[in-house]
Amino acid sequence: MYTSKIDTLLESIRKLLRRGAYPNAQRIIEKMRAADVAYLYRYLNEKEQFAVFKLIDDLDTAAEILSHVDTPTGANILTNLERERGAEILKAMDPDDEVGILEQISEEVREELLSFRSASDTERIEEVFLFPEDSAGRIMNTNFFALNEEITVSEAIRELQKKGEDSTEMVFYVYVVDDRNHLVGICSLRQLLMVPPSTRIHKVMTPDVVSVVPETDQEEVARLVERYDFLAVPVVDQENKMLGIVTVDDVIDVIRHEATEDIMKMVGTGDEYHSRSVLHRARMRMPWLLAAFIGGYIGIQFLKMFDATLEKIVALAYFLPIIIAMGGNIGITSMTIVVRGLATGKIAVQELRKAVLKELGVALLLGILYGAALMVLAYLQFGDVTYLGLVVGTSMLISMLMAAVIGTMMPIILHYLKFDPAVATGPFVTSTVDSLGILVYLGMATVVLMK
Amino acid sequence: MYTSKIDTLLESIRKLLRRGAYPNAQRIIEKMRAADVAYLYRYLNEKEQFAVFKLIDDLDTAAEILSHVDTPTGANILTNLERERGAEILKAMDPDDEVGILEQISEEVREELLSFRSASDTERIEEVFLFPEDSAGRIMNTNFFALNEEITVSEAIRELQKKGEDSTEMVFYVYVVDDRNHLVGICSLRQLLMVPPSTRIHKVMTPDVVSVVPETDQEEVARLVERYDFLAVPVVDQENKMLGIVTVDDVIDVIRHEATEDIMKMVGTGDEYHSRSVLHRARMRMPWLLAAFIGGYIGIQFLKMFDATLEKIVALAYFLPIIIAMGGNIGITSMTIVVRGLATGKIAVQELRKAVLKELGVALLLGILYGAALMVLAYLQFGDVTYLGLVVGTSMLISMLMAAVIGTMMPIILHYLKFDPAVATGPFVTSTVDSLGILVYLGMATVVLMK
Repeated sequence: MYTSKIDTLLESIRKLLRRGAYPNAQRIIEKMRAADVAYLYRYLNEKEQFAVFKLIDDLDTAAEILSHVDTPTGANILTNLERERGAEILKAMDPDDEVGILEQISEEVREELLSFRSASDTERIEEVFLFPEDSAGRIMNTNFFALNEEITVSEAIRELQKKGEDSTEMVFYVYVVDDRNHLVGICSLRQLLMVPPSTRIHKVMTPDVVSVVPETDQEEVARLVERYDFLAVPVVDQENKMLGIVTVDDVIDVIRHEATEDIMKMVGTGDEYHSRSVLHRARMRMPWLLAAFIGGYIGIQFLKMFDATLEKIVALAYFLPIIIAMGGNIGITSMTIVVRGLATGKIAVQELRKAVLKELGVALLLGILYGAALMVLAYLQFGDVTYLGLVVGTSMLISMLMAAVIGTMMPIILHYLKFDPAVATGPFVTSTVDSLGILVYLGMATVVLMK
Repeated sequence: MYTSKIDTLLESIRKLLRRGAYPNAQRIIEKMRAADVAYLYRYLNEKEQFAVFKLIDDLDTAAEILSHVDTPTGANILTNLERERGAEILKAMDPDDEVGILEQISEEVREELLSFRSASDTERIEEVFLFPEDSAGRIMNTNFFALNEEITVSEAIRELQKKGEDSTEMVFYVYVVDDRNHLVGICSLRQLLMVPPSTRIHKVMTPDVVSVVPETDQEEVARLVERYDFLAVPVVDQENKMLGIVTVDDVIDVIRHEATEDIMKMVGTGDEYHSRSVLHRARMRMPWLLAAFIGGYIGIQFLKMFDATLEKIVALAYFLPIIIAMGGNIGITSMTIVVRGLATGKIAVQELRKAVLKELGVALLLGILYGAALMVLAYLQFGDVTYLGLVVGTSMLISMLMAAVIGTMMPIILHYLKFDPAVATGPFVTSTVDSLGILVYLGMATVVLMK
């Protein structure tokens, strides 16, 4: 469904809700795909979201909508729902979506919800919470299709038909296990159809399976899916027994989330930004601004060191912003290229030296170009101060070169120290570049112009 | 295969290539998955890449490797290959991968390669090039599995088996068409297995198909796949006749690419950055730096307007960098939040006003906090200038508020003018924020301190 149609639907539903015409609203919603209802949720306020959700009688539809909305929205709806109904809906969800929502819910509500569930369900869910955040274990679906290697293709198809009756879950692959439940192969439905029905599946299966453990980072799983074009990756324990599968739709979420997270971290704010209040947002960004503030405060002290120079030649102050801006621009760009290159694997670790040298080369070319331009402009406008043009042009070039080095090296160093290269590199890069730029500029001005 | 194993393999292959022990290198490579060989290519230089490629005899393996490497790498290998061999390898590739590589090749080489192909192949490929760049038509696979609605499930399975013999392509869905080839439904392999073999497939299929046209933007396709958790989306013409499918692996590439592109554009450099020379990179970034340069130059003029003020109170210059840095930080963060929010759909267009107000709220809180801090620090250090602290603190607050407005509004305005909100918003936001910050700061200083 395209955006224009969503807009019309949104208008109608809102109008009906306002008028209290719930049965009419219900009729519209029941005709929609669950994914489209979930999409609509982005445009509804909390009250409307909840009102729409109450209109959905069917458990499976409710479960599907809940698994399609943003997890904070889903958690919010679930928290406000009657506990027993909430527990039923959770049970109807895929295990991975269920965990995704329970992660976002307060511990108290979670326990209340789980009290309606069987001991084995509760145990399974609690086990998932033992896996590290952002690990494969947290997003794996424990609902997968595994068969013993000794059964025949016709038996396999019968199993598939049986399972089909109580599950709407998409079957991506058939996993083949031995008597001790060790994963020994993988088989597509199509492969099953290509051989005589009496063939044993270990004859059909592909034995060379790429698998991960539950502790594997989700981003690593995403990279495997991308590299091999898989639709799902099996998750196995240390003994190679199957625990679940991570499916491609979850991998897409990981990739989208990872990119946003990287960008947000680079500019100095946290993840999960959108659902937060103003106060919460301000608190998230405060520490990174502090980096900028401290950098600026150091800049004040540096400038103060050169007060004699500045007092004699006030024109020097005019060029502070441009020198800082050009350096900052180079620093941010170089940093972004390295951070993103590391994240996507476009820059291999072996190539980092080359990446730094290339950025330095770019900064040199651009620094000479714009440094010369500034020199000429400064000479034309402030020619009465001898050498002022030379000082500002050269300082800008040096500041840009330093920015390229700092911008590329800072994420690389973080990477080697096993930190996330994206974390707030932005504010640190710019404030370092700013302070050093001031030092070089006024240092040079003092030496050249004050003798 | 994990990174550590890749490292070992890389070492061995390099050593063997250096020693000219090609048969040994060949033996190692033949044992690897094509996707792993392609992964290795990231770490090899051009000469090594080509040498490894020459070791691969099998046409399908060569085709698979070529479809897994980065398209610029693939294009480079293909350009250096003997034309006839190149044409054979291209023919063995999936149609969408083939087009992906041909896009990156010079027109001359492309024509030479296509001269070895049948008229119908050439026509098909040339038709694809008529679709806009970044459209679904460019990445669709014309190799899909469509069946007439009137045939039975057992016939469908027989067709599937027949097709299987000459294709390794993954079958995602069975597409159901009527007598005039109009797309009328979709069916998973599993659905086929769930009914008696004599059932006609129009009884099994899901009739409500989401499809796109070849002109649909790839990002729109990605959003549909994300919303509905599809494994593939059918591409149809205006008459609803099937032309091809866009598969989830290509969608993952689109999402990854889109995120990187957005980030790169925001900081002011082009896409496809990594494979470029230093000179080319410098040329790509030059125009965006010009925006920063012009902004800085305007800043110089603004500062010059206030030379009397600056000459009287040199200490004012000390605070220029911190006021600019804090404003710039707010501006870049606000901008990133809006650009990314628009791209991922986390910020709906209807919510933009709310997003601006929230950012303004955040800037107000942070501006009061850091403005007050700067006021106090300025008072402590430069208390001899009455009201200096007041001026710098207030200016910083105002500059941060302006930055929040400019940072959020600029991408929104670009969005409404149908421009890409990401394009170089960074340099424009920072230079606007810088110049206005200078104006406010020194304007206020002149009014308050110079009377």
